[in-house]
Amino acid sequence: MCEQHKGQAPAAGNLGAQAAVTAWLDEVRWDADGLVPAIAQEAATGDILMVAWMNRESLQETAATGRAVYWSRSRKRLWRKGEESGHVQQLRELRLDCDGDVVLLKVEQLGGIACHTGRHSCFFRRLENGAWAVVDPVLKDPEAIYR
Amino acid sequence: MCEQHKGQAPAAGNLGAQAAVTAWLDEVRWDADGLVPAIAQEAATGDILMVAWMNRESLQETAATGRAVYWSRSRKRLWRKGEESGHVQQLRELRLDCDGDVVLLKVEQLGGIACHTGRHSCFFRRLENGAWAVVDPVLKDPEAIYR
Repeated sequence: MCEQHKGQAPAAGNLGAQAAVTAWLDEVRWDADGLVPAIAQEAATGDILMVAWMNRESLQETAATGRAVYWSRSRKRLWRKGEESGHVQQLRELRLDCDGDVVLLKVEQLGGIACHTGRHSCFFRRLENGAWAVVDPVLKDPEAIYR
Repeated sequence: MCEQHKGQAPAAGNLGAQAAVTAWLDEVRWDADGLVPAIAQEAATGDILMVAWMNRESLQETAATGRAVYWSRSRKRLWRKGEESGHVQQLRELRLDCDGDVVLLKVEQLGGIACHTGRHSCFFRRLENGAWAVVDPVLKDPEAIYR
C-alpha cells in the first residue's frame, strides 16, 4: 500500500530459468500471515467489485488458470470464486502496486454479481448525511445463489 | 473484505443524536491495530489510484473535510495526502463494503499523480509472460515532487 519514503524492493538479480517461473510471486510482499489483499475490478466498467485475500497458492493458480482464486480466512482454504454461486471472475489483467503489497485483478464478472449479498459490488453502502445508505440493489436473492 | 457466509454486522438500533454523529464510524470493522484499508479510485475515470490505511481519526477527518487523510504506518501519524506533494485527493464519495472492513474513496486527484513514484496510479506493474512489467509512465520526477 502506498506510503511515501519507503525502501525500494530488492531487484530480482540473476535467476535461473526454474526460479524465474515463480520470481514474480516473490516480488509480492506477503504479510505476516502470508496473505495479500486483492482488489477485483470489473474490466469493462471500472467498478470495484470486491476485496478479498490471496495467499501465494491462490495468486499462482489465478494467474495460471485465468480465474480468480482467493484465500478464505474464515474457511482457511482456497476459495475459487464462483465455486458455489457460479459467479466466476475471469481474469483479464493482473497488476501489482508500487510497494508490492496489494494486487489488482481486472476481471469479467460472470452473472454480474460479485457480492454474497446478491449485489453487483460489495461496495453498495455510501456515506450520506452521516450514515451508510444502501444505494445498490440486490440483483438476486442470496438464498437462490447459495443453495 | 468479501467472504461468503460471514455473520451480519449488528444493526445500529436506537441512538441518541450525539452517538449518531459517529455511529457510522462504529460500523467500520477496524482491525486489531485499529486500521482499515482504503482504496482511492479516480471518480472520473474509474482508475484505481492507490490503497492505503486509515484509522478512525483519519476516516472521520476525511469525511469532515472532504480531503483524503490516511494513517501512515511507517511514520505512525496522520498522512494528509498531498501535504508534501500537493497531490491532494478531493473526496467525491465514500463507500463501505459488505462486511465493513474496506472503505472506498472516489476522489478527484489533484495533479493527476497519486503514486510517490510520480505515476498516475500505484498499480503501474502488470503481469506479462510471468514477470511484472512497468506499463505506466512517470509523469513527474519524484525528486521534483518531494523537495
